[in-house]
Amino acid sequence: MVSTQKVPQIISVKDLDSSQAKWVGLKKVGYVDQKGTPRSWEVAVRKTTSVFGVDAVAIGNILLHPTKPPSTMVVVQYRPPVGKYTVEWPAGLIDKDETAEQAAVREMKEETGYEGKVIDIGPVISSDPGMTSATLQLVMMEVQLKEGEAMPEQRLDDGELIERVVVSLDQLYTRLLEWSEKDQYIVAGKLFYFAAGMHFAKQGKYAGYSSVVSS
Amino acid sequence: MVSTQKVPQIISVKDLDSSQAKWVGLKKVGYVDQKGTPRSWEVAVRKTTSVFGVDAVAIGNILLHPTKPPSTMVVVQYRPPVGKYTVEWPAGLIDKDETAEQAAVREMKEETGYEGKVIDIGPVISSDPGMTSATLQLVMMEVQLKEGEAMPEQRLDDGELIERVVVSLDQLYTRLLEWSEKDQYIVAGKLFYFAAGMHFAKQGKYAGYSSVVSS
Repeated sequence: MVSTQKVPQIISVKDLDSSQAKWVGLKKVGYVDQKGTPRSWEVAVRKTTSVFGVDAVAIGNILLHPTKPPSTMVVVQYRPPVGKYTVEWPAGLIDKDETAEQAAVREMKEETGYEGKVIDIGPVISSDPGMTSATLQLVMMEVQLKEGEAMPEQRLDDGELIERVVVSLDQLYTRLLEWSEKDQYIVAGKLFYFAAGMHFAKQGKYAGYSSVVSS
Repeated sequence: MVSTQKVPQIISVKDLDSSQAKWVGLKKVGYVDQKGTPRSWEVAVRKTTSVFGVDAVAIGNILLHPTKPPSTMVVVQYRPPVGKYTVEWPAGLIDKDETAEQAAVREMKEETGYEGKVIDIGPVISSDPGMTSATLQLVMMEVQLKEGEAMPEQRLDDGELIERVVVSLDQLYTRLLEWSEKDQYIVAGKLFYFAAGMHFAKQGKYAGYSSVVSS
């Protein structure tokens, strides 16, 4: 990482009461199943859900350069929950009164410095439906670069250190596999799935499917 | 859904103490950031992590039929954390002494009835690195079907009701968007990202990239 900075270190891990937490809570959901049997499920919840009912936004960004192949910017940052540097698309919680689109434009600007054009807004999806009520939307954004243009400044909050890495789209899957092999790094699941989906389609290995890919 | 069954209902939501939970916990992680400043982060953890350090496995399955286009089986089930029916790939927690591959074969058999061939085992990835320490691996599996073969029986646990839906791979993205528009349904984030990655690659809209797709 940045050589003048220290590697962050976890110094303590303590049980936290749901009532004492500001960002995340733990709930026991009682429900009646399809046969009428009462059951329960343990659920991690976010305490910061927007008025639109969605927690977070991620920005699937495409950087278009006049002379280089299309690429994407991933952000690398230390994430205390996993105790490693994560490789993700820019993302963040949606503020109380924000739409997913507004949050995407804001987070993209904060984390990468770039302003882009929103080209698609995905549906509300579940972060991890076996464990949490948290939801997100994937917003696809295009950024048109100019020849020789310097990277714009980020607008990071105090304490944030987010490294930007530009990866050619056709190398994304391979690069994520390489990152995954490094001890200090872990790739965010959703970005990996997107790259795996691209890789799978590119392989065109499945007869009926490859004809669709090349049409 | 199945007409003879009732729609599950959430009847209570209560705060849960981390010490009282069996499956999920809440932790406060204290850490020192890159500038040496002490900070903390609230983290949802799983209490069931396997000896290999990975929590869960998901099965990106491909059904190969002699005369129909390649398809995939998604599973639809009521998930109390989101209070809706979720659309996901088969998945589950890895048992204490299991590898991801063993868990994938087991879960595929339990949830779909099918036995398949593991064709790829993905790296350990983070479920949602801003919120949880939970990790998973995506295992890709191929199932060769026979002409006119009936669907095998599932091996579900007591209380489980998992509907199987076969979707042609080239329609997966569109079908997920359609499910997302129904009130009672939500698509799991990672499956959506995979489908979005396939869709993105198939579009071949980005000049330098489309040449890769069609090569």
